[in-house]
Amino acid sequence: MTPVITISREFGSGGHSIGEKVAAKLGIPFYDGEIVRRVAEESGYAKELIEEQGENTSMGNRWFDISTASAMYFQSPQDEIFLAQRRVIIDCAKQGPCVIVGRCSDYILKSEEINAMHVLIHAGLEHRIERIIERYGELQEVSAKKRIAKKDKQRRTYYRYYTDQHWGDYENYDLALDSGTLGEETCVHIICELADHFGQ
Amino acid sequence: MTPVITISREFGSGGHSIGEKVAAKLGIPFYDGEIVRRVAEESGYAKELIEEQGENTSMGNRWFDISTASAMYFQSPQDEIFLAQRRVIIDCAKQGPCVIVGRCSDYILKSEEINAMHVLIHAGLEHRIERIIERYGELQEVSAKKRIAKKDKQRRTYYRYYTDQHWGDYENYDLALDSGTLGEETCVHIICELADHFGQ
Repeated sequence: MTPVITISREFGSGGHSIGEKVAAKLGIPFYDGEIVRRVAEESGYAKELIEEQGENTSMGNRWFDISTASAMYFQSPQDEIFLAQRRVIIDCAKQGPCVIVGRCSDYILKSEEINAMHVLIHAGLEHRIERIIERYGELQEVSAKKRIAKKDKQRRTYYRYYTDQHWGDYENYDLALDSGTLGEETCVHIICELADHFGQ
Repeated sequence: MTPVITISREFGSGGHSIGEKVAAKLGIPFYDGEIVRRVAEESGYAKELIEEQGENTSMGNRWFDISTASAMYFQSPQDEIFLAQRRVIIDCAKQGPCVIVGRCSDYILKSEEINAMHVLIHAGLEHRIERIIERYGELQEVSAKKRIAKKDKQRRTYYRYYTDQHWGDYENYDLALDSGTLGEETCVHIICELADHFGQ
């Protein structure tokens, strides 16, 4: 049976788009915005807040500072969002094969009895800059570089905080692909092909 | 054109065997023992020494200590072996598509104008223990674990010393595969398939 597929991705590597195409090709659900909607429903927090706090953490973030300092005493809104998101991800995965992007989903599903294939998509900085400029037309190269560095740092800090692991360690993935050198279409093709044989 | 394929591997992950099968399937040379022979010829050092020093370094190693302390003053035998090995690897790669296992070959070829695809093969500890026990029949699980830890450490230290990079960082590979969860045959299949389209 097709496994659940989690996709961890560097910002600008095209991982989101690859995940979407894999889901379409395999005819299985693609979870991203849908997770935000469900978490909002479950937690009562605004969608915008969940989008912002759902996998990003800057060290200057007030909640993050508070939760680090006083984790023993109360659950921060960010922790609540993480826990609601965790429940939604497990729920989605238990319903059957699907593609889930980011949000520590690789780590979360490893603790469950779910047949899941964990994929990492990365790319060289030059490829990511090109992609970001193409996507957010008005950006200059310097701004694109800054945006990439900031987003990567936020996601890594978030992942580190909630999983106590380093984001990107090869041990955590069944498959890691450089979308810059291999190309987006090849990545989609390889993931679909592996999914067909995974865990057999 | 089929690229040069470098394979970095964890000890016990089956990377060597995967590389051999990929080379056979693609009908291109597989370099491992051949590199040792050529380095022996070029450097004058004994084959056994090159096998031992060609990608392993333990911090207790006398040469390594000397070369760390006095790198400015003389070239240690280990450095000489590295440099001879580097020349042989570049020479092999320049002759056309081939598979080269380990020996910092990913790092070495990145500085050259050579069409190369860099692959990392890894596997969970339980898979590697099983494989090592199967291969070196007499070993117990505890000894296999120790041997894996020692070999990994030696290779990582060697890689770190000569490349100034961390072994296993995903940025250094076009493709990383977990041979434990995906299976050896699937890894061979995927590498060959990607090789056919790489760099086009």
